[in-house]
Amino acid sequence: MRVSRLMLVTLRDNPAEAEITSHQLLLRAGYIRRLAPGIYAYLPLMWRVLRKVAEVVREEMDSTGALETLLPQLQPAELWQRSGRWSGYTAGEGIMFHLEDRQGRELGLGPTHEEVVTSLAAELLRSYRQLPVNLYQIQTKFRDEIRPRFGLMRGREFIMKDAYSFHADEDCLRRTYAAMDQAYRRIFARCGLHAVAVEADSGAIGGSASQEFMVTADAGEDLILTSSDGRYAANQERAVSLAAAAVPLPGGCRSAGTGELLNTPNQTSIGDLCSAHGFDPSQIVKVLLLLARFDSGREQPLLVCLRGDQQLNEVKLANAIAAQLAAEQGSLLGITPLSADMLEQQGLPPLPFGFVGPDLGDAVLAGARRWSCSFVRLIDHTAASLESFVCGGNQPDSHRVGVSWSGLGLKPEPLDLRSAQAGDRCLHDPDQLLQASRGIEVGHIFQLGRKYSQAMEACFTSETGASEPFWMGCYGIGVSRLAQAAVEQHHDGNGIRWPLAIAPFEVVVVPANGADTTQASLAEQLYTALGRAGVDALLDDRAERAGVKFKDGDLLGIPWRVVVGRGAATGMVELVDRRGGEPRELEASHLLDLLLPEIERQRRGLLEP
Amino acid sequence: MRVSRLMLVTLRDNPAEAEITSHQLLLRAGYIRRLAPGIYAYLPLMWRVLRKVAEVVREEMDSTGALETLLPQLQPAELWQRSGRWSGYTAGEGIMFHLEDRQGRELGLGPTHEEVVTSLAAELLRSYRQLPVNLYQIQTKFRDEIRPRFGLMRGREFIMKDAYSFHADEDCLRRTYAAMDQAYRRIFARCGLHAVAVEADSGAIGGSASQEFMVTADAGEDLILTSSDGRYAANQERAVSLAAAAVPLPGGCRSAGTGELLNTPNQTSIGDLCSAHGFDPSQIVKVLLLLARFDSGREQPLLVCLRGDQQLNEVKLANAIAAQLAAEQGSLLGITPLSADMLEQQGLPPLPFGFVGPDLGDAVLAGARRWSCSFVRLIDHTAASLESFVCGGNQPDSHRVGVSWSGLGLKPEPLDLRSAQAGDRCLHDPDQLLQASRGIEVGHIFQLGRKYSQAMEACFTSETGASEPFWMGCYGIGVSRLAQAAVEQHHDGNGIRWPLAIAPFEVVVVPANGADTTQASLAEQLYTALGRAGVDALLDDRAERAGVKFKDGDLLGIPWRVVVGRGAATGMVELVDRRGGEPRELEASHLLDLLLPEIERQRRGLLEP
Repeated sequence: MRVSRLMLVTLRDNPAEAEITSHQLLLRAGYIRRLAPGIYAYLPLMWRVLRKVAEVVREEMDSTGALETLLPQLQPAELWQRSGRWSGYTAGEGIMFHLEDRQGRELGLGPTHEEVVTSLAAELLRSYRQLPVNLYQIQTKFRDEIRPRFGLMRGREFIMKDAYSFHADEDCLRRTYAAMDQAYRRIFARCGLHAVAVEADSGAIGGSASQEFMVTADAGEDLILTSSDGRYAANQERAVSLAAAAVPLPGGCRSAGTGELLNTPNQTSIGDLCSAHGFDPSQIVKVLLLLARFDSGREQPLLVCLRGDQQLNEVKLANAIAAQLAAEQGSLLGITPLSADMLEQQGLPPLPFGFVGPDLGDAVLAGARRWSCSFVRLIDHTAASLESFVCGGNQPDSHRVGVSWSGLGLKPEPLDLRSAQAGDRCLHDPDQLLQASRGIEVGHIFQLGRKYSQAMEACFTSETGASEPFWMGCYGIGVSRLAQAAVEQHHDGNGIRWPLAIAPFEVVVVPANGADTTQASLAEQLYTALGRAGVDALLDDRAERAGVKFKDGDLLGIPWRVVVGRGAATGMVELVDRRGGEPRELEASHLLDLLLPEIERQRRGLLEP
Repeated sequence: MRVSRLMLVTLRDNPAEAEITSHQLLLRAGYIRRLAPGIYAYLPLMWRVLRKVAEVVREEMDSTGALETLLPQLQPAELWQRSGRWSGYTAGEGIMFHLEDRQGRELGLGPTHEEVVTSLAAELLRSYRQLPVNLYQIQTKFRDEIRPRFGLMRGREFIMKDAYSFHADEDCLRRTYAAMDQAYRRIFARCGLHAVAVEADSGAIGGSASQEFMVTADAGEDLILTSSDGRYAANQERAVSLAAAAVPLPGGCRSAGTGELLNTPNQTSIGDLCSAHGFDPSQIVKVLLLLARFDSGREQPLLVCLRGDQQLNEVKLANAIAAQLAAEQGSLLGITPLSADMLEQQGLPPLPFGFVGPDLGDAVLAGARRWSCSFVRLIDHTAASLESFVCGGNQPDSHRVGVSWSGLGLKPEPLDLRSAQAGDRCLHDPDQLLQASRGIEVGHIFQLGRKYSQAMEACFTSETGASEPFWMGCYGIGVSRLAQAAVEQHHDGNGIRWPLAIAPFEVVVVPANGADTTQASLAEQLYTALGRAGVDALLDDRAERAGVKFKDGDLLGIPWRVVVGRGAATGMVELVDRRGGEPRELEASHLLDLLLPEIERQRRGLLEP
């Protein structure tokens, strides 16, 4: 390809819309162009990258025996109603774009395909003899993100590889899950990405176990916690750890555990309380009041207790609530903090926010217009294990000191609701501490179990002749996100440094002075020879100064540059490695001998030979 | 690939939902599965076919220098408002699915990409030096069809290759248009399709010239008219011809051309009138009353005159109306016949339908609630050229005989509003007659001119420094439709006969008795050897009877079958050509020598060597 025919437009300055480096570079180098928030055109250079990534994904999926398919993007609402996810994906988080067709039938634009593929499997896979099957597709997906941002990182239209496997038993599912884990590691390595596998929350997809693959990068949206020995890694949403020990409260329980009243004017935060009275945050039980909304219409007040030095993990809370109530109430649509306004709308009297104790009575909810009239109470194990603590007095400007759970008349059932954090000790070895790093989620694999097959009555005939729901797994890779993550991980001050396996072009041949016929003709000759040798080569045939062409080549991130300059007269050229190092002067006739084995090696990315 | 791992489910009977053969076969052979009206899953076999078609398209597009890209499927309404097509594509024909995002912004699901690509070009292509550029993509498109049918032929979600070219002048556009014409011919030939190029109407896309490529097949939705010398071919929507000469009306003009009244009780049709009074249909001027609706809100009554033996061509009418009024009134949203109900809704008195003459006065529209109060009158040249004719008397049960245009006080401006039909004489040579055949439109190329670039102010700086709108072309191929058209053109009573270039597999190796280890091992060996030689081979490893496996292979349409039967003991196998002919017995060791050159040849489809 000749640069003059590439519709190349590079920008000198960082566009205002771009916040992170990879997004800036992809815009500046003419890879992508924004059409609307979270919606990007993939220009020819980007499309070459994406096709290369897709081809790596395809080869590795095929090598596991998975079958490529293409499922509809428009999906009938009825399918999602059968799995119970329609309202959660539309009315709830509202992540699914949806519309009515000319007949007034509701359709969703696929953010994921569990429903479609499960209904197909129910029709096509009748017998255990046909199992296992793993179907995958590489396709544009849609999500009406609340806050689309960072270019292709969190877009509203993006390319995914999604795969769905069907099994006769759980063991078989586990084997395919393990094979996908291995395939994913090869995919990321081939694409030149340093990715780590971490335990993950299964979120709206569901299922029993899941693992994310994170490309480590400071701009990542996810927080990863890793043990120093490398034996434990998890997304913070999911991570577990030992909390630091609490500082015992001097004086222990008082007044048989009902505590002594303490005047705490305007001391509504843990910080205020500690500085005024010399408490340690770990001596306090903090109470959070929230409201959970369900598909059934139920609006459920929650009273959550945590130790004062701990942070609520909203994902763990949502999972705990859903586990208790989803069977009756349908999907959990959302959780929001209670506010004075919300109480007023329910016709309820105000509550002493900041001074509430774990024993706040259900009476405060009596007469609520729509809410359930009793709290669901959830207590984190850090709070539950305190023997004597400080807590709110359930009236303004008042706390209690030396309280015990039995003194409050409560029997806590400890749950894990806290966020693990850097510095926490690990469960598998308390001598190991958790370290935090940031990551970009590029893959996620799930053991779905029978969640969808049961809901949608997707069954096969087993070896014993019984009709059983499939065991299922699903496996996603964010193809467009992966491409941008590669830029986030591989760039320098001059631009992108693509891993060669996914670079739009492998080599750029640059005649330093295109008007010099010797240079132009040698450049042309090398460009042709590279092309014949199967190298993706670019010829910078523009009438620009050498400096401009070098700068653009660096910005674009082409791994190798062959400069045909004054030396052309004596058959000499210069070879420059985008990753750094000294330019090498060599005879043009030796270029291919030197370069081809190097390119061949780099096409394997980080794979061990 | 092994058949046992292919998720293959073949059906014995034709599914009720399928009306045409190709649709039936694709369903029966397990290529596609319907998810909703006009929405299909491409199962692994189909996806292999589609990938092969896409690869042929890609190679031929790339060889013309076109650049592959991928543009968003979600498109902001504002872009379509700028080109003036939003309301036509949503409120009008309503062919575009559209929705609101969570911010309440309107988005359409791309049925085509002129708006998106023109806005990109305006940002990226600043100078004539960057031109010409031809951008293409292979992508799923959406159309909310009124009547989705025939499987992939008229779906609501389908795969297109669409390309858009940008030029500094019209000559350059014409050169690219010609190059696309040639590329398209190679694409269809390589895919093994007999396709003909025909003149076409440009429809909602617009522009000055366009040409369709039709795969000839009885099940085609389009009517093609071709001259017997092959020098003229056009879609009936667009075709022109010489109408048969009119039979002169005996007696000529009467009463100075105002005609003589004739009592014609209940004779509302041309047929009635002719049988009652012995007229020839060509002696009558028939009048059609219609209503055109425009984007501006204007509702415009039309009075259209045709010779009694001619049929109205609705596409030509729409173009004529749009040409007269679209500049002022915006997009033409639709044309419908006037009815008694519609008159009543406007508060107008009834009209003598069936007895209306060309001179029906505008007074009948006076006081209409929303309609314009005068007719736009359009007269086809066949009617305009009559010197003396029969027409309605503008009152019930009455016609007039011996009428002339001047007698009616009208000066006709002849338009081409009639449908050409089989048997008509050709314009280029009146000795040639038009023949009709049916076709499936698989490609359409357009010279758009400056329609979009002017509307969207997409300009470049010309060689003289002036800012000028681009000259544009656009070029589509229905990739999924093409694949089904191949089945419509290539099948027999036993199933599909894929052209090898787009067959999901090129060869199927069938051990007649899989339990026979000699057969099984020779089959395995040949399957491996074929794979190593780069052949897409399938091994039917199922524990089925030979007959079942042969039947499935025929239904699937795999071009070559290698049967490993009893002869395996002496190293003999049988080679069967799906296109017919006697099975050939040959030594297994000679199979590749025989088959590979044949496959190599067939991969070129219908291309001349």
